[in-house]
Amino acid sequence: MRRKIYLVAGANTISMGTGRKEFNPKKERPGLENYIHEAGQAVLKQVPNPSAIDETVIGNFMAAVFNKQGHLGGFAATIDPDLEFKPSLSVEGACASGGLAIISGIRSVMAETADVVLALGVEVQNTVKAIYGADFLAYAGWFQNRKKSHAYFFPGQFSDRAGAYYEKYGFDNARKGMGRWFRNAIENARLDPTAQEHHNTATDLEGLYHKMTPNGKNFVDHLNFFDCSKVSDGASGILIASEEGLKKLGVPCKDAVEIVGFAQLTRNITSDPPNPLDLTTIRKTAAKALENAGISIEQLGTIETHDCFSIAGILAVEALGLAAPGEGAAYVAAGKTARDGAMPMNTTGGLIGWGHPTGATGVHQAVTIWQQLTGNAGAAQIKLSPAKPYGLSINMGGDDVTVVAIVYKMCDE
Amino acid sequence: MRRKIYLVAGANTISMGTGRKEFNPKKERPGLENYIHEAGQAVLKQVPNPSAIDETVIGNFMAAVFNKQGHLGGFAATIDPDLEFKPSLSVEGACASGGLAIISGIRSVMAETADVVLALGVEVQNTVKAIYGADFLAYAGWFQNRKKSHAYFFPGQFSDRAGAYYEKYGFDNARKGMGRWFRNAIENARLDPTAQEHHNTATDLEGLYHKMTPNGKNFVDHLNFFDCSKVSDGASGILIASEEGLKKLGVPCKDAVEIVGFAQLTRNITSDPPNPLDLTTIRKTAAKALENAGISIEQLGTIETHDCFSIAGILAVEALGLAAPGEGAAYVAAGKTARDGAMPMNTTGGLIGWGHPTGATGVHQAVTIWQQLTGNAGAAQIKLSPAKPYGLSINMGGDDVTVVAIVYKMCDE
Repeated sequence: MRRKIYLVAGANTISMGTGRKEFNPKKERPGLENYIHEAGQAVLKQVPNPSAIDETVIGNFMAAVFNKQGHLGGFAATIDPDLEFKPSLSVEGACASGGLAIISGIRSVMAETADVVLALGVEVQNTVKAIYGADFLAYAGWFQNRKKSHAYFFPGQFSDRAGAYYEKYGFDNARKGMGRWFRNAIENARLDPTAQEHHNTATDLEGLYHKMTPNGKNFVDHLNFFDCSKVSDGASGILIASEEGLKKLGVPCKDAVEIVGFAQLTRNITSDPPNPLDLTTIRKTAAKALENAGISIEQLGTIETHDCFSIAGILAVEALGLAAPGEGAAYVAAGKTARDGAMPMNTTGGLIGWGHPTGATGVHQAVTIWQQLTGNAGAAQIKLSPAKPYGLSINMGGDDVTVVAIVYKMCDE
Repeated sequence: MRRKIYLVAGANTISMGTGRKEFNPKKERPGLENYIHEAGQAVLKQVPNPSAIDETVIGNFMAAVFNKQGHLGGFAATIDPDLEFKPSLSVEGACASGGLAIISGIRSVMAETADVVLALGVEVQNTVKAIYGADFLAYAGWFQNRKKSHAYFFPGQFSDRAGAYYEKYGFDNARKGMGRWFRNAIENARLDPTAQEHHNTATDLEGLYHKMTPNGKNFVDHLNFFDCSKVSDGASGILIASEEGLKKLGVPCKDAVEIVGFAQLTRNITSDPPNPLDLTTIRKTAAKALENAGISIEQLGTIETHDCFSIAGILAVEALGLAAPGEGAAYVAAGKTARDGAMPMNTTGGLIGWGHPTGATGVHQAVTIWQQLTGNAGAAQIKLSPAKPYGLSINMGGDDVTVVAIVYKMCDE
């Protein structure tokens, strides 16, 4: 990093959708502009001098179809009049749009065209029934491929990956890991008041998971509903600042995390994944981010990874090198990714527990890591060893097509 | 600029749509992916070492609805396999998406995360009838405003601006300027083989213009079809490079233009324009870009401005300070913006003559300026005085909401 870059003042709206007590599909609900405003305001309120913000970047995937609205950059000034007549744009890379917002902000600060960037992610998806929503989310895959593929396009893609995993490494072994992944997600979500599964009071989550077969509720072949992330409305925001930017905002370094490395790689959307058992782009991107940061995976205290489906969580464990190929499910089943495990992952519930407002997810991941590394995670706070002062986030768009990996470090002071 | 930044190897596809001989609305036509491939390849073929490209940025506005396709960053590797597993994303700011692609690339090079960025813009709009297309383009305005506004939203917005101009500065005065704007657009387009109006052979263009009243063909109150830009399919691309990047590409400085200043400002999308007679955001953004470049408007040899409607051209002349408020129409009517005038504007036809593939337009503007300043404009080449070695592009999204202004300079060597 040619310039020191910090993240500070993370905030999330509630991840709204089925599971939340407040959610009523038949009543009118807040719109896209309300979520942008709420998350943006929640960020600004945390800093003494929000007028130091130079620029806004908004990550969003499909407001064009969910909300008949483009041009989201134009909403920056609705958060605060001080943001008017400053730069603002939106960035898109399917479900990695939030991660792209963060690295676009990082680039602006590194370019010295900004000292402080407000990065937001937003998606409001409950405007249509889930079956139509699944079709909109499929726009993350190539149109020509979708015509000859699964009706539920992305669940189908990851079902194929799960099926290949069952066949090569054993069904029971795989499902044990995936069931534990689900349990961790819900248990962590219960500790975060903004999580979509915060109100989930089910006991014996693994038992519940195993009672529902793959293909449960006439779904895809190799996954059931508990293997899937949520349909969510939500927004997250955070500030990206230089050292000078932190001073302008009036924020001490201890309230911030440092970005010590990042990478973003994109696979060809028109090709099939090289190997269904390998999240190739995640593997390459995470390795490059860690290399850029100059650290090894053992130095990480926590990881947020993109579990759009539980199998993506298991495969990410392997792609990151935490477990050898085929051993990811057992690694998870043994509790190693639980909040008190060797490598706590998705400590506020991830996409399955916290929720998946698609364009916001990458920003939410950064907010969670920021919360954990600065001691701002409330009931969801994990204990971090000073020997492991780093965090990593992995945000994925499409079927391992766009990946953003970011490495964070506790402030030295 | 903390680092020298250059543009090189610009290329356009044809701007396809009504007016082009090849266009047949009833036959299957190339898709989004074909346009990305064609423009990308045309850029890569111009440089000895395209493998030096570090990153891709794609400007696009509404592929989600025109093409049921998001996640355009995933198509970078379809241009060349060397672009796979490199960064790629798409950026959006309505019709300023192309300009945002260019400045996102500039920021990456300034951040030193890239030495060479491929910036593309693309839009394929003839997938639906123009009346539905107009509705999709309206997503550049705020959903809540559109409900209570014109049926043709953006033509309506600019019709209101034209009506205010007629009332304050005189109908005949205004229409004379707008008619001349139309004539210049078509005459310039005839000189560029990729322009949508390249095949236009009409004589007495101003006479033709004045025969059709405002509200011609039952259109909006104060504009006719000749006042409007085209519905276009097209893509444009160009490389953004550091000094080191030019060397890696194997391109001499004389084939490049230098970026000496830029600015991007965004107005609140939920508010009405402060004054219908003032393109406030264009005024502020252009002034800032010129200030950043350290030059005055008299030093510009050519300008590309965003004439989605002829009245936007007239008002831009005033916003740039080329003419006082109310005198822009007379300035244009006197031929001052014609290719042999005091300030040649839109020398390949602009949005009315060359075409307006919305997300591509900002990149097309940069390509035109690059062509002119390097002597690559073919039959459309204008004569430039060495005393005026600068160019300026103004790319607008929505009704003066997002504006990108870039200042270019001939290479010193």
